[in-house]
Amino acid sequence: MALQLTDPLLTGIRPTAARKLLLAGIEAFATLGYHATTTRELAARAGMSPAALYVHYASKTELLEAIIKLGHQSALDAFQRGFAETTDPAARIASAVRGFTVWHARNQTLARVVQYELESLPRKQRREIGALRTHFETMLCTEIEQGRKTGEFAVDDVAGTATAIFSLCIDVARWYSPRTNQTPEAIGELYGQLALRMITAPGSEPPPAAPPS
Amino acid sequence: MALQLTDPLLTGIRPTAARKLLLAGIEAFATLGYHATTTRELAARAGMSPAALYVHYASKTELLEAIIKLGHQSALDAFQRGFAETTDPAARIASAVRGFTVWHARNQTLARVVQYELESLPRKQRREIGALRTHFETMLCTEIEQGRKTGEFAVDDVAGTATAIFSLCIDVARWYSPRTNQTPEAIGELYGQLALRMITAPGSEPPPAAPPS
Repeated sequence: MALQLTDPLLTGIRPTAARKLLLAGIEAFATLGYHATTTRELAARAGMSPAALYVHYASKTELLEAIIKLGHQSALDAFQRGFAETTDPAARIASAVRGFTVWHARNQTLARVVQYELESLPRKQRREIGALRTHFETMLCTEIEQGRKTGEFAVDDVAGTATAIFSLCIDVARWYSPRTNQTPEAIGELYGQLALRMITAPGSEPPPAAPPS
Repeated sequence: MALQLTDPLLTGIRPTAARKLLLAGIEAFATLGYHATTTRELAARAGMSPAALYVHYASKTELLEAIIKLGHQSALDAFQRGFAETTDPAARIASAVRGFTVWHARNQTLARVVQYELESLPRKQRREIGALRTHFETMLCTEIEQGRKTGEFAVDDVAGTATAIFSLCIDVARWYSPRTNQTPEAIGELYGQLALRMITAPGSEPPPAAPPS
C-alpha cells in the first residue's frame, strides 16, 4: 500500500514541501536503501531542486531521522491504543499485538525504513530511538508479568518471549503483500491469538485445582 | 559474527578469488545495501581490480544471485537437519525451528542480504528462489497437518501459522547482536518451544519436544 501525501500519518508535517520530501524519503530509502539515495534523487521525487531540500532538512541524515521518529511514534500509538481498551492483561496483549501487526502491514514501506535503516543513523540519534523502543518492550513485559502473577500466563523468559512477539508483528513488513488475500486485520487477529498462546502454558486452561493441603 | 573466508559455508566456492568476492558482496550488500554498492567497492574489498571481478561474476546481479542462492541452500540444510532427527511432528518442528533460528543468528550478515535484498533480484531469479522458499513452507505445513490429524496440534490457519513461525526465526537476523548475553542456541531452544505453543491448543498436554539422543 503506497503511502499518500494525504495520509493522516503525514498531515502533521508542514509545510507541504517538507511533507513531499518526507514521502520521497520513505519511498526512496525503502526501495533503493538509504546509502544509495542521493539528495538529487530525493529532490527529483519531491519535484523540487536539490537546494530547496536543505531549506527543510539540513541533511539526508536529518530526513532519515525525521522519518524514523515519525514511524516509531505512529507504531507506538497503534500499540498503545490496544492497551487503552481494557485492563485485562490477555485482552490488552491480544489487542496491542493486533494493532501493531496491522500497522506493519498497512505502513509496510515506512515500516521497512524504520526497521532496516536504523543502523544508518548516527549513534546519538540511534540512542534516542533506542529509548522509544525500550518503552514498547517495557509495556509488553509489564503486562506479561501481571498475568504471570495471577497464574494466567506461564513464561520463563519474559524479555525473550516479548522479543519474539515483537518479531511476529515487525516481520510482517518484510513478507506482506497487498496482493495476498489476507487483510492486515485478519493477520492481526491471528497474531494476537498466537501471542496469547506463546505466553499461556499448554495445560493451563482450565486453571489447575489447588492441591489438597 | 563476521563471516570468514574459512567458514565451511564458503569453502565450496572456488577459486579463492570468487570466494573473496562473495564474502565482499555479503559484507557490502548487508551494510551499504545492494544499490549503493559499486563494482569498484566490491573489487576493493576483495583486493582485486574491477576488471578481475567480471572473470568470476558477469555482473553485480549475478554476484547477488550467487549469495542469495548459497544463503537459502545453507538455511534449508539447517532447517532440514531438524527434520531428519526424528519422525515425531512436535519434536521435528521444535528441532527445525531451533536449527533455523540458530542459522539466522550465526549467519546474521548473510541472512540480512538473503532476506532484505531478494527484491533487488530480477524477476526470473526471484521466481527460482521463490520455489526454494515454498519448499520450506511445505515442509512445515505438512508437519503441522500431521500433528493436527492425530489431535496433537490445534491450528485453524496452517499456512498463516507457519508464516508466523518463520517470522520468529528470520527476524533474529534483524535484532540479534553477538554482544547480547543470549547465545544463538539459547534463542533457538526458546523459539522451538514457542513454536510448539503456537500450534498446541491451550488445555492440551504439552507435546514431547525433546529430540531423541
